[in-house]
Amino acid sequence: MEKLNTPYYAVIFTSRQSAQIEGYASVAERMKTLCAAQPGFIKMVHATTDDGESVTTCYWTDLASISAWKANREHQAAQDQGIARWYDEYHIEIARIERSYYWQRS
Amino acid sequence: MEKLNTPYYAVIFTSRQSAQIEGYASVAERMKTLCAAQPGFIKMVHATTDDGESVTTCYWTDLASISAWKANREHQAAQDQGIARWYDEYHIEIARIERSYYWQRS
Repeated sequence: MEKLNTPYYAVIFTSRQSAQIEGYASVAERMKTLCAAQPGFIKMVHATTDDGESVTTCYWTDLASISAWKANREHQAAQDQGIARWYDEYHIEIARIERSYYWQRS
Repeated sequence: MEKLNTPYYAVIFTSRQSAQIEGYASVAERMKTLCAAQPGFIKMVHATTDDGESVTTCYWTDLASISAWKANREHQAAQDQGIARWYDEYHIEIARIERSYYWQRS
């Protein structure tokens, strides 16, 4: 948790997994590594909602970096597998972070 | 999880609680109810990150609604208590959701 210079961008990937999780863990791990190596990558945060949905938020410096990652061949192959097997539903939101306020007890 | 019409806005409140949680639960519950009754409110989602941070994301139709909720007296009093007691640190991000893609297995 830290203040970042605005504006920056976030891709919020909310998903509900299917019962077919074979192969998921290793590909997810590979995507995490590959994503972090892309130009414009800031950080990735994973959370679980109170309803049990998985939320992966990936922060980027600019929209062009998001487009480049979206077009990455290995990432696209992983997305295809996700649709074919691993997910029952997902929601992707592309957000522009306009303002950021950070406070810490001193 | 559902597709929403873009653009819309999100306030992402990430926090780490202090050891002083007395009074927190009832105020949090009251804020949840009060917030949901504001004009422009869409929905609120609570999640916990893998690092144990609390993330409350509140979705709004427009920035003016966010400003109005920020200026709400009872909400401000709750924020003051949060700073005085309940939180050790927090991060607030104001985001404009530019695009939204939803997919469900058919």
